[in-house]
Amino acid sequence: MIKGHGDDGFAYGGTIIHDFSSNVIAAMQPEGLLEHLQKSIALVGHYPQPAAEQLAAELAQRKSILDDEVLPTNGATEAIYLVAAAYGGTTSAIVEPTFSEYADACRICGHSLQRIRSLTDAGNDADMVWLCNPNNPTGRLIDKERLLDHAYTHKNKLLVIDQSYEHSTKGYCISAAEAVEAGNIILIHSMTKRFAIPGLRLGFVTAAEHIVRHLQKWKQPWSVNALAVEAGVWLCRNALPTDITPFIEECRWLQDRINDIEGIEALPSDTTFFLARLDNPCSTLMKERLAGEGILVRNACNFHFLDEHYLRIATQEHRSNEQLLKAIKKCILQ
Amino acid sequence: MIKGHGDDGFAYGGTIIHDFSSNVIAAMQPEGLLEHLQKSIALVGHYPQPAAEQLAAELAQRKSILDDEVLPTNGATEAIYLVAAAYGGTTSAIVEPTFSEYADACRICGHSLQRIRSLTDAGNDADMVWLCNPNNPTGRLIDKERLLDHAYTHKNKLLVIDQSYEHSTKGYCISAAEAVEAGNIILIHSMTKRFAIPGLRLGFVTAAEHIVRHLQKWKQPWSVNALAVEAGVWLCRNALPTDITPFIEECRWLQDRINDIEGIEALPSDTTFFLARLDNPCSTLMKERLAGEGILVRNACNFHFLDEHYLRIATQEHRSNEQLLKAIKKCILQ
Repeated sequence: MIKGHGDDGFAYGGTIIHDFSSNVIAAMQPEGLLEHLQKSIALVGHYPQPAAEQLAAELAQRKSILDDEVLPTNGATEAIYLVAAAYGGTTSAIVEPTFSEYADACRICGHSLQRIRSLTDAGNDADMVWLCNPNNPTGRLIDKERLLDHAYTHKNKLLVIDQSYEHSTKGYCISAAEAVEAGNIILIHSMTKRFAIPGLRLGFVTAAEHIVRHLQKWKQPWSVNALAVEAGVWLCRNALPTDITPFIEECRWLQDRINDIEGIEALPSDTTFFLARLDNPCSTLMKERLAGEGILVRNACNFHFLDEHYLRIATQEHRSNEQLLKAIKKCILQ
Repeated sequence: MIKGHGDDGFAYGGTIIHDFSSNVIAAMQPEGLLEHLQKSIALVGHYPQPAAEQLAAELAQRKSILDDEVLPTNGATEAIYLVAAAYGGTTSAIVEPTFSEYADACRICGHSLQRIRSLTDAGNDADMVWLCNPNNPTGRLIDKERLLDHAYTHKNKLLVIDQSYEHSTKGYCISAAEAVEAGNIILIHSMTKRFAIPGLRLGFVTAAEHIVRHLQKWKQPWSVNALAVEAGVWLCRNALPTDITPFIEECRWLQDRINDIEGIEALPSDTTFFLARLDNPCSTLMKERLAGEGILVRNACNFHFLDEHYLRIATQEHRSNEQLLKAIKKCILQ
């Protein structure tokens, strides 16, 4: 299980004022959702449906696919572990640096692991390729045509794409219908991230029916809690699309200002979060120093292929971003 | 995954008035809990702790064991699947009839299965024995001294005891401290059942530290949602013990009245739920007929070693129980 992740403000006893450590954009939480959940609280007195069937039907309608091509999960994390379990013992190539849970889940389920830097580096013996698009922690997006082309030219292999951040980019991601049509793509989606409700735990898988049927054999019942199901159904019916443009523009502004500071560089990103590279390898110390200023960032040193040079920063509202710049200037070690 | 479980009122489009199908006792839900959760709703905006560490500490204190001897889970179900995964590929004996998830989880994780009727029937080659105590669906309790004796005389074997219904009996169950001391007992607990919050999904494991450490290697992070963690901590601090006596007495009254009806027999139970045996093998038809009267029971025909003779009934409040008796008299096929 992951150690040293983001959103770890609890470790600082309430002294954190500005949180850049989690890729969740708080402003993405739809108005009215919390009130609806408060009104629905008595739902905790009954079991949810074992496989969240009603939510699956709502999601399928919204994604223009069939009910049997969707599987709701206890956050994207359950989806990752479920896919790893359902294809246990195969050989998996993971495009790194990325979210550590793909490797952890595969290891637990007896996969042979290849750590690769690019999709094209996957060995011929790899049965599955795992990647995150847009990628965490880099924020970079791989062109969807390149991914579809890979899937169509590797018909006997599986391509697992975690699209938890599909709503944090202006670029194009693979649609559920395209994944279903390809037949060998498993898409992992996160409502947790999209709607800023990570505490509720709500994700889902879309894929061809034969894949979903296979995953269901490994699925434990009632894993998605009743309030998460209720939130999911409500969001399918009520949530409006969010224009990500202002968040992306704010991110570019923040990156430009960071690049004005000596000793730190903001790396290119297609989303609202990005890696910052420190000239000196001191990310652990920098995280602690910034925390002393009430600022929380993600120490990215524990991502595969990264080290003590890297922090991950998720853009927040303008006033908070200004405070971050001030704190970096104060704390940076040159 | 389970098909044909209890608490399936959703299948009858809102026509169910009295629900005897789930072993959860609605009256066990503590006053003030729902209000507290409503006030805490903003917690869904942040990730829960990856392993619900704060809740583990609260539970450990309440159970007089160490933090490292507790593992919170996404309902008892996650605990079952976690134990099966952590000891994948071994030989498991399951005392039947019982909750079907033990067998399902073991099968998924490559266990060899023995279906046995009593603890003493476990083969010498069985590495683990699984049982539920008090047992679902029978409601019968195995004496705790007998279980401890088995654990101490089979030091190289694991004994997995699902104690989800430990608060639904006046008999004695194994304490967390006793399981820790034995060193080869894994107890599965359900706060979901104890406090009538099955929609929230909250369970935990207690066992010796070396077992919990082993389970943690297979555990996915953030599986327990933020409101379930909050409820758990609140319950540890605020919930008072509930006297089960009046519920047990009401159950005995209901069983006696059922035994006055020709064609159906209530089997002995140590809890508030019990099996009813129909003279005619027609449990599927009886369930549907009773549903037509607004009464929901659990068709127990899909439990291993049971068949179309069996229904499971969970006692409810007196007025509902009277309605059940009336409906059974009307619907029974003789």
